[in-house]
Amino acid sequence: MDGSPMKSHEIIIVPEAEIAGLMTPEAAFDAVEAIFGAMARKDAYNFPVIREAIGHADALYGFKSGFDRAGGALGLKSGGYWPGNEAKGLTNHQSTVILFDRDTGRPKAMVGGNLLTALRTAAASAVSIKHLARADSKVLGMIGAGHQSAFQMRAALAQRPFEKVIGWNYHPEMLSRLEAVATEAGLPFEAVDLDRLGAEADVIISITSSFDAILHDAQVTAGTHVACMGTDTKGKQEVEAALVARATVFTDEIAQSTTIGEAQHAIASGLITEAAITEIGAVINGTHPGRTSAEEVTLFDGTGVGLQDLAVAEAVVDLALKTGVATRVPF
Amino acid sequence: MDGSPMKSHEIIIVPEAEIAGLMTPEAAFDAVEAIFGAMARKDAYNFPVIREAIGHADALYGFKSGFDRAGGALGLKSGGYWPGNEAKGLTNHQSTVILFDRDTGRPKAMVGGNLLTALRTAAASAVSIKHLARADSKVLGMIGAGHQSAFQMRAALAQRPFEKVIGWNYHPEMLSRLEAVATEAGLPFEAVDLDRLGAEADVIISITSSFDAILHDAQVTAGTHVACMGTDTKGKQEVEAALVARATVFTDEIAQSTTIGEAQHAIASGLITEAAITEIGAVINGTHPGRTSAEEVTLFDGTGVGLQDLAVAEAVVDLALKTGVATRVPF
Repeated sequence: MDGSPMKSHEIIIVPEAEIAGLMTPEAAFDAVEAIFGAMARKDAYNFPVIREAIGHADALYGFKSGFDRAGGALGLKSGGYWPGNEAKGLTNHQSTVILFDRDTGRPKAMVGGNLLTALRTAAASAVSIKHLARADSKVLGMIGAGHQSAFQMRAALAQRPFEKVIGWNYHPEMLSRLEAVATEAGLPFEAVDLDRLGAEADVIISITSSFDAILHDAQVTAGTHVACMGTDTKGKQEVEAALVARATVFTDEIAQSTTIGEAQHAIASGLITEAAITEIGAVINGTHPGRTSAEEVTLFDGTGVGLQDLAVAEAVVDLALKTGVATRVPF
Repeated sequence: MDGSPMKSHEIIIVPEAEIAGLMTPEAAFDAVEAIFGAMARKDAYNFPVIREAIGHADALYGFKSGFDRAGGALGLKSGGYWPGNEAKGLTNHQSTVILFDRDTGRPKAMVGGNLLTALRTAAASAVSIKHLARADSKVLGMIGAGHQSAFQMRAALAQRPFEKVIGWNYHPEMLSRLEAVATEAGLPFEAVDLDRLGAEADVIISITSSFDAILHDAQVTAGTHVACMGTDTKGKQEVEAALVARATVFTDEIAQSTTIGEAQHAIASGLITEAAITEIGAVINGTHPGRTSAEEVTLFDGTGVGLQDLAVAEAVVDLALKTGVATRVPF
């Protein structure tokens, strides 16, 4: 009925349950570092984000999508937040990645996106640490102790010879999660207040859902690298705008950084302009020097882009095909 | 890894090749009529459309998406146009529908969308004929003889006791397609010029990719129903703006009608305002009278919305489950 003979065609299905056995933090790191580089070269770009409160089950639902001309990934992550899921034994955040063949537009793969989202978000702050933190960084400071914090910490620890982890969380009883991950890595963990966290940490990762600044400019010492990973919506905020203004600011995508990322507040109050923000990909590609002194404060505004999702999903499809885990379905 | 036990879950795959054996024009009609009604009641709405020239293979690619609170359909159609496909034995237009569970956000089904797109587009003009054309319509006039014209004609012929089909196409040699469909329906077909087409047809369907008005106001006689189905992009145009201004105008979605639909030109030139355009769903729901006299010219501006795609895909998934054709894959 479509006017031309159907060629036999298959799609590849990689269920959520298979992802943990296929994907590693290292593979996610490589995929995310490569896609950030491609974005800065304009070889890859994200399409506009769709995000809707659908008026059912209090759900937020939408799509992040894009195309990587260099690597070939084309498609979208459909994602959403269903607050009633936990009561049903399901994850509240639900993500699915769908990849398409860039040469024909036919669907190529459907991949569970829950774990991949956690891994790609962790990989982004790890990439920023690799390229921006001082080489002699010894203390990692964690702000936030929710589900995602463990992923961020594990990925970060691989980037520098950290000797200690310190952490703060609004609900201190949750800090046991951070301690467990530190212990797993053979490192001591200490719960601290924000003054000590800012004073002692060489690298700080914030991963919260805060709508007010938690970490203040005066608390952060010279030479620190701060990765703000929680702010992905208008109104959210993890650090004081003055800290953003003082730091050399890097991001995944400038358009998101200035509107829904951590930099939105420094931009809105006129403390900085868009011109002060650099894509991390420029550092990866060697077209921006990144950190230029041991005293400089660097800040990575990780907003999360669709291309990260496509990049890790492409990697997982390759791994699923190599290991024979992929389900192939005629389509 | 997602913090909660995975419940066993399956997605339903309905490949393109199965659609022809499952879906009928009648089922598409019912699905599209219902969703237009839901849209006018604000029970269903479309999300913003993504459409990108991706800079590879001259392809246009994007998503139409939405949520039908009444019927439950949630998801998107990923669609694109790959002009090099025909040389590979594939359809240039490639569409895939992905449906999600509105209660949990988990993926529910992946459905081939090529034939479904043809059927839902045909169903839209048929719905407009049912609700707006004169009951005594005898002559159907077709403008355009491309691939989609056959679908439009078949769906239209079911709505009135037509006695004859007349047609015009920029390339007259393609009119054999219209003749074949008329013959299949037991009706005579005549190739005519646009003056005769406008003068003799009770119902006119235009389904072209024109960027200039083909049918002019003076050619159309009183009492005609015109369904403009080809204009879905800024700049496209099938009929003179004066005809849109003279007619009582209905559409699938007003926001698309005024910006990318046939009404864009009458709006841009100030001949009509948005207030002059009515959603066809209001007529379906009985909250707008539709045609009020035998002399009135009615015009349906069919722009094509994501909810049509979701509605027919939901219908096809139900049919696939009933008939056992659906492939179920653990996910």
